Amino acid sequence: MAKVLTSRNESYAQWYNDLVIKADLAENSAVRGCMVIKPYGYAIWEKMQRVLDDMFKETGHVNAYFPLFIPKSFFSKEADHVDGFAKECAVVTHYRLKEGEDGKGIEVDPDARLEEEYIVRPTSETIIWNTYKNWIQSYRDLPILVNQWANVVRWEMRTRLFLRTAEFLWQEGHTAHATKEEAITETETMLKVYAKFAENWMAMPVVQGHKTASERFAGALETLTIEALMQDGKALQSGTSHFLGQNFAKAFDVTFANDKGEVDYVWASSWGVSTRLMGALIMSHSDDNGLVLPPKLAPIQVVIVPIYRKSEDLEKIDLVANKIVDNLKKRGISVKYDNDDKRKPGWKFSEYELKGVPLRFAIGPRDLENGTVEVARRDTLSKEVVSLEGIDAKAEALLDEIQNGIYNKALKYREDNTRSVDSYEDFKRLLDEKGGFFLCHWDGTAETEELIKKETKATIRCIPLDSPEEEGKCMVSGKPSKRRVLFARSY
Amino acid sequence: MAKVLTSRNESYAQWYNDLVIKADLAENSAVRGCMVIKPYGYAIWEKMQRVLDDMFKETGHVNAYFPLFIPKSFFSKEADHVDGFAKECAVVTHYRLKEGEDGKGIEVDPDARLEEEYIVRPTSETIIWNTYKNWIQSYRDLPILVNQWANVVRWEMRTRLFLRTAEFLWQEGHTAHATKEEAITETETMLKVYAKFAENWMAMPVVQGHKTASERFAGALETLTIEALMQDGKALQSGTSHFLGQNFAKAFDVTFANDKGEVDYVWASSWGVSTRLMGALIMSHSDDNGLVLPPKLAPIQVVIVPIYRKSEDLEKIDLVANKIVDNLKKRGISVKYDNDDKRKPGWKFSEYELKGVPLRFAIGPRDLENGTVEVARRDTLSKEVVSLEGIDAKAEALLDEIQNGIYNKALKYREDNTRSVDSYEDFKRLLDEKGGFFLCHWDGTAETEELIKKETKATIRCIPLDSPEEEGKCMVSGKPSKRRVLFARSY
Repeated sequence: MAKVLTSRNESYAQWYNDLVIKADLAENSAVRGCMVIKPYGYAIWEKMQRVLDDMFKETGHVNAYFPLFIPKSFFSKEADHVDGFAKECAVVTHYRLKEGEDGKGIEVDPDARLEEEYIVRPTSETIIWNTYKNWIQSYRDLPILVNQWANVVRWEMRTRLFLRTAEFLWQEGHTAHATKEEAITETETMLKVYAKFAENWMAMPVVQGHKTASERFAGALETLTIEALMQDGKALQSGTSHFLGQNFAKAFDVTFANDKGEVDYVWASSWGVSTRLMGALIMSHSDDNGLVLPPKLAPIQVVIVPIYRKSEDLEKIDLVANKIVDNLKKRGISVKYDNDDKRKPGWKFSEYELKGVPLRFAIGPRDLENGTVEVARRDTLSKEVVSLEGIDAKAEALLDEIQNGIYNKALKYREDNTRSVDSYEDFKRLLDEKGGFFLCHWDGTAETEELIKKETKATIRCIPLDSPEEEGKCMVSGKPSKRRVLFARSY
Repeated sequence: MAKVLTSRNESYAQWYNDLVIKADLAENSAVRGCMVIKPYGYAIWEKMQRVLDDMFKETGHVNAYFPLFIPKSFFSKEADHVDGFAKECAVVTHYRLKEGEDGKGIEVDPDARLEEEYIVRPTSETIIWNTYKNWIQSYRDLPILVNQWANVVRWEMRTRLFLRTAEFLWQEGHTAHATKEEAITETETMLKVYAKFAENWMAMPVVQGHKTASERFAGALETLTIEALMQDGKALQSGTSHFLGQNFAKAFDVTFANDKGEVDYVWASSWGVSTRLMGALIMSHSDDNGLVLPPKLAPIQVVIVPIYRKSEDLEKIDLVANKIVDNLKKRGISVKYDNDDKRKPGWKFSEYELKGVPLRFAIGPRDLENGTVEVARRDTLSKEVVSLEGIDAKAEALLDEIQNGIYNKALKYREDNTRSVDSYEDFKRLLDEKGGFFLCHWDGTAETEELIKKETKATIRCIPLDSPEEEGKCMVSGKPSKRRVLFARSY
């Protein structure tokens, strides 16, 4: 059978795009930079949402919903914030269309111009802190632990499905606290939630760390991040959690009386992950045959394909397959029995391989005679013939094995591609030759950081939380450094 | 204790607004006509979403996501559709802000004008059918049964929290079929799903029926609706399901080859419910003391309040209460034990009454001695002291009783306020005196319908599906009529 995907070696970017399209995950729309998330892609996103939402609620958060639009003037109130977002905003200026003068088509009604323009939210700190002003008077009203699931718009010029789109789906947590310490703890707690989700559910190892000042969120005092390594040696920032200090409270005049009656500004955090995680998931595990999904996030965990020539064979297989379906469902395994007569087994095999279904069972007449099933693993592409007896327990064990297996494979890849480098020459050479993560000494200045970025396109992904203290010299300036930081080229 | 709400008798509209605000359901935002859905309100909406989503999936639907923006030209393609929505559209004309010339504030960058303006979706038929064009070639690609959970914007001039807001949350199903019959069946199936949800979950009886031609969705050949009666005698359209014929397929040139190889346009349905259902839910059951929620949609089904003076009493109550909490949770009942020391029991009682928690348990020192709990029902405001023994089974039974009780109460109210009227004079008088639903004969013309609307502000809510054939005369024109239709003033 002809390969449907460009291979990763040939063009990693083309492979990614082919895969997203061919596996029915998403496609470009008629609207510049905006994607359509197709049902199969959306089913994965829904699973992610459900798990994350449960984790947010377990850590004491509740959901709410704030307006899509933000008055333009709100953006001016926090200076760094407006610098960060003003250049990529969709602006609503009118509220009505009318019939065109020529009677053909419609045009914007010039009489329906808004007094103040609205921005389609690129993120919601400003509208939310303007709202919190009315919710907070005393320490008794704190903390506020709110999350929002929403669409946001950032007018990116170069877009790629899931990775960078003008509109994307995300969640944004916005919390308000009485003390600095509590806000910092919240920021750290949510980074841990993201790291746990990435590793335990997406099977994607991540490095946790602090962003440097120049890579922080616009308006944050500290940005924490989780960074994952993709198979092409580039980093993908997968989730961020920001300690906002009192910046937004000051911008929107949000004060509270503490338990001693003293008035102070409120402390804040915000944190988010988006449909970008879909891109991270795809690029962490998939291969030239298609998607490889961690079983915990796969919409279909097991597919059963009947192999038959005569319809009486199919009837017999149906009986066996339906029993397997029942038993798998009892174990909470999502299973599809595909006995569609319009498609051949070969077509089905490659379709489910492309779509990353973790386990495929095939049942033919000989299996009926022998009481067996052919079990194929998507991750290793290995096959074995196993007894029907206890197939459901076997499936459950295999799904766990696959979940762990692809995590370990991704971890090994990252370990193999993380290099401690001390010379700038080596750094540049290895960056071009191998890519990956680099742990290097840096003098802590924005100038050196900028120089490295300009010369190599690599950025400091983070200052890892687990980076040990170590005396060293900046690989560029030779000035003293106390710990290594993580460099990579990135998405 | 002072009443926190305006009474319904004094001003129904003010009562509604007070209730939405005071029960922490929603509030107006800084953006004209857009609301903030607060955590307690959003928790109810989430429950609705979860139930509806499960019902959609049980009927074979999958979720997907389409762009927020719609190119302006798409609107011109379906003539009725543009007429319906052009006058209330938020229009995006620019994609960048820049620093103001005076250095203060920011302004829209005139150099960043879009070639073609985008409309913020008021509904997604156009962008979705433009997408379906690429998804459909043959009958094998059909049916497409897709739903989308999304925000939409309609620039309403007069807005009211939940009932009519510029931005609202909803779901919109968009299905594509090979035959007219199948599309009509789908339209009917989804109306039944909505009716079942309204009656079994919201405890809100609804009349199912067809809209008249003038009340149809812009672009539909038939619109089916569920109509509920609010406590002030006004109708509230609570969900609609549209048979779109081949209108959108023709507008976007979506054809398919049927199993004989003949090419035809695809048949369509669309259907939706929105956060407007929150308004319907509130107005169906609530009273002058606050919200009354059907237990199946209540975020908290049982609240437990300790009554104590000394902290050693509280410790003893904690033990009993925590055991009740465990037992209720085992039965899948959501329960909150509120032993917050900063609030008095009286404050808590009125707070949970305002928020419509179906059952309140109070436990004091005497209850500890007697092995009892005071159980208060929100719907009837009745109290009884019951034995701790078996309190969890009792709670479960009471929640069912409340669910059925408020449905029956709403049904009786509707029956008492549905009148068959044959004279236009009686109609006008009773409409002013009593409001409610009116079953009347109508001659089937748009002229008569318009006249009645102009003279009385009442509209034909629907031609009920269960309206029996009956010879009659139009109450206005005296012309023959074959069945009664449902009139009311409405939200």
